[in-house]
Amino acid sequence: MGGIVEKSCCIFFVIFCLMCASAEATIREGKPCKRIVLHYHDIIFNGTNKENATSAISANATALGKFKFGQLVIFDDPLTEDQNLLSPPVARAQGLYFYDMKSTYNAWFSCTLIFNSTQHTGTINMMGADMMDSETRDLSVVGGTGDFFMTRGIATFTTDTFQGAAYFRLKMDIKLYECY
Amino acid sequence: MGGIVEKSCCIFFVIFCLMCASAEATIREGKPCKRIVLHYHDIIFNGTNKENATSAISANATALGKFKFGQLVIFDDPLTEDQNLLSPPVARAQGLYFYDMKSTYNAWFSCTLIFNSTQHTGTINMMGADMMDSETRDLSVVGGTGDFFMTRGIATFTTDTFQGAAYFRLKMDIKLYECY
Amino acid sequence: MGGIVEKSCCIFFVIFCLMCASAEATIREGKPCKRIVLHYHDIIFNGTNKENATSAISANATALGKFKFGQLVIFDDPLTEDQNLLSPPVARAQGLYFYDMKSTYNAWFSCTLIFNSTQHTGTINMMGADMMDSETRDLSVVGGTGDFFMTRGIATFTTDTFQGAAYFRLKMDIKLYECY
Repeated sequence: MGGIVEKSCCIFFVIFCLMCASAEATIREGKPCKRIVLHYHDIIFNGTNKENATSAISANATALGKFKFGQLVIFDDPLTEDQNLLSPPVARAQGLYFYDMKSTYNAWFSCTLIFNSTQHTGTINMMGADMMDSETRDLSVVGGTGDFFMTRGIATFTTDTFQGAAYFRLKMDIKLYECY
Repeated sequence: MGGIVEKSCCIFFVIFCLMCASAEATIREGKPCKRIVLHYHDIIFNGTNKENATSAISANATALGKFKFGQLVIFDDPLTEDQNLLSPPVARAQGLYFYDMKSTYNAWFSCTLIFNSTQHTGTINMMGADMMDSETRDLSVVGGTGDFFMTRGIATFTTDTFQGAAYFRLKMDIKLYECY
Repeated sequence: MGGIVEKSCCIFFVIFCLMCASAEATIREGKPCKRIVLHYHDIIFNGTNKENATSAISANATALGKFKFGQLVIFDDPLTEDQNLLSPPVARAQGLYFYDMKSTYNAWFSCTLIFNSTQHTGTINMMGADMMDSETRDLSVVGGTGDFFMTRGIATFTTDTFQGAAYFRLKMDIKLYECY
């Protein structure tokens, strides 16, 4: 009797191990499997600051409202670990944002963070609404490559500072819940 | 003998429970874990309808074909539960669409649905081809935040009505297959 | 004693089977569950090639650098199994790319591959940085519909050929790691 039970347990255990091996992703809602906090610096090209500019207006604002509705900005922005614009970047963010409300400033983002350092190699892709009036807002991390293979999660944006149309800085608190 | 089997079963069970706890996502192809049907209303800004307009042309159509190829529209559109434009919106959709065929009207969408009601708080991010000639077409829900944390699924679009370049309404049948 | 162990094993097994049934996705890092290699052909509209053109410039390049920073292209491009532009397309790619570096040519992509053949029906959605200076670069497959329901993975881009601003061809090596 005990022998049969033992045998079926063994077979069971093998199936179980095989199943564990095939599902390699770790998904945990409570606690991110990886967390990276970065600061995003955007210096808008004004026609004279070629040296410093990291983004440019690709399509102009429309006349719908007073908050740049329809203005499309394309960027290649440095990401630093602290808030200092002059700190050595640990990654770059390439993508677009555009303003999309007629009653307030509000943006929508889609971009790729590109890591190429001793610490990380690979990319993180994200998209979502950047509701600038909210103190913090969550965007979706929808995929990644390299060290961030197939990652998913949430990127929480906070506005660090804003200097009119010249410069702004965002804190990106990236919490990855699917790691491989 | 029985004691050893029992013990190994116990250990086994504990491992099993731990594993269940760590993989909290429920994935089921057959039946969505959540389903939301919404109607999307788009009123294009024509220069004189600032009050009602919910979207604006950010980049003009090119001369490639007669179907607005290259025209890019940025929107902040209300989402209602029924087809009535004047029903109180339960969410907003912010994002872009553009026309991308030279032989027929066809669009491509990427947007965020923003919920801020007693029923739902959070966002759903989606993208995909909106093949307007097909009676229904499926886009991808690629992520979410808040009540829709990390969600994934399919959004089926149907054109409800179309009034030239002035107004159109889409039915979005959002079927979420990954819920947390 | 043995009877109790056996019984608890049985209950255990039923729970286990139910759990397997609910989690239908197969995730395996080592080997893709599906792999498709396609060649993407982009013929830019120059004002006179309406017949052949498959993409058009929707927003012009800015003056930031000499590498088309900010130029936005919208495309409906054929995908073929071999490198020959004239081979019958097995799918189409609809979406956008834009140039986003001031020091070199570099692009960012977001698009939908639309399959409508005897072999495949459905769509694959992808996005990411197309770092044109790298021999190969990985973008994210973030979702799919139809035969590619909820798929995820990596698309590796390689530049096959480049003829100035007139034509370029990319190899897309699409490796799907989540299949349903």
